[in-house]
Amino acid sequence: MAPEPTSTRPRVQARGLRAREAILRTCMAIATVDGLDGLSLSQLAGRLGVSKAGLFAHFASKEELQLATVEYAVARFQDAVVTPALAEPERLLRLWRAHELNLAWSVDTAEQPGGCFFTNAQFEFDMKPGAVRDRLIGVLEEWLLFLERLASSAQRAGALRDGIEPRQLAFTLNTFAIASVHQARLVGADEVNARSRRAALHLLRDAATDPTVLPEE
Amino acid sequence: MAPEPTSTRPRVQARGLRAREAILRTCMAIATVDGLDGLSLSQLAGRLGVSKAGLFAHFASKEELQLATVEYAVARFQDAVVTPALAEPERLLRLWRAHELNLAWSVDTAEQPGGCFFTNAQFEFDMKPGAVRDRLIGVLEEWLLFLERLASSAQRAGALRDGIEPRQLAFTLNTFAIASVHQARLVGADEVNARSRRAALHLLRDAATDPTVLPEE
Repeated sequence: MAPEPTSTRPRVQARGLRAREAILRTCMAIATVDGLDGLSLSQLAGRLGVSKAGLFAHFASKEELQLATVEYAVARFQDAVVTPALAEPERLLRLWRAHELNLAWSVDTAEQPGGCFFTNAQFEFDMKPGAVRDRLIGVLEEWLLFLERLASSAQRAGALRDGIEPRQLAFTLNTFAIASVHQARLVGADEVNARSRRAALHLLRDAATDPTVLPEE
Repeated sequence: MAPEPTSTRPRVQARGLRAREAILRTCMAIATVDGLDGLSLSQLAGRLGVSKAGLFAHFASKEELQLATVEYAVARFQDAVVTPALAEPERLLRLWRAHELNLAWSVDTAEQPGGCFFTNAQFEFDMKPGAVRDRLIGVLEEWLLFLERLASSAQRAGALRDGIEPRQLAFTLNTFAIASVHQARLVGADEVNARSRRAALHLLRDAATDPTVLPEE
């Protein structure tokens, strides 16, 4: 059956969404190498293989494109880390899984050739006031709160010792992920990731009421 | 007594050295905010209040200026962290002091308004191959080796438990300093520095044969 003339609109919209997603995917990858603020809109358009006008059809300003790239990365992180971590039924393993998935996310891939998009962008924007920095701070705070809640939940379930402060545990655990991103491309990813994993396991086994639930260090 | 004509040369050289040091001090500060590679030589000359030719009189290229800035920061770090840490006679306290001084160095000051020069520059250059990146990697490796040797020395003196691996302890301790630099300007320096200090003390007290040598967490 031939489509009604009006039904071309959704198809055009779908094509627009695909183009928009392709732009955001490329911007996310470029940001991990050259910085989220490192390229001009003309340079970005060149790398994306579109005209500057074509880019402006999707994003009214560089800041709008940067904010959309952050949201795109947040959605990717949700799929790659948050959702699968929450699928783990055992509370302490859920915390460990969240950290392990975060480390896996931070490893260099075609999607993020320079490592974790967020850690890179947070470093880049920490002295650049504005909407992008505010959103990147929000992302960091949401992630620390997510880890803190996983730790609280594990503690309520009796899996973490009473003396452990969930916020401190969340902070320290995240520290090892940041160090991996910072050092993996400087002193060798294999050593850094192994040391980071070992430090995190030592922390969690020390805090656990039953360390045998966790992998060996 | 009037100076001999030939003796003006040292005075000119001294003036040249002072000018060179003023340039490097300013470049180090700017690098913590805008990046070591963030400004063009013209922009730098503008910020320094000298002509571009005046800048070229001291440094033949942007890379030469960047490398000289790294060496200037290394010398500053030596004076602020390494030398005073080595003045501490007790081996375990020497390790703690090195970390504490590194945290103090990383706090925002007029000298480093964006926090630790090295952590910032290492993040910026981790995907930029060349002499500057190579030197920044060398600085990180030297620092980790310094911490590792302090840990080995403490272990030989019986102050660290036998099962502790000095390299792992050095890696983990440095992790807390990096996390402070990463997060201090994002989620609040006071909380971050307090949590970072507490995590490091917990690590060292756990590794010590006599934790009472160290401050309370």
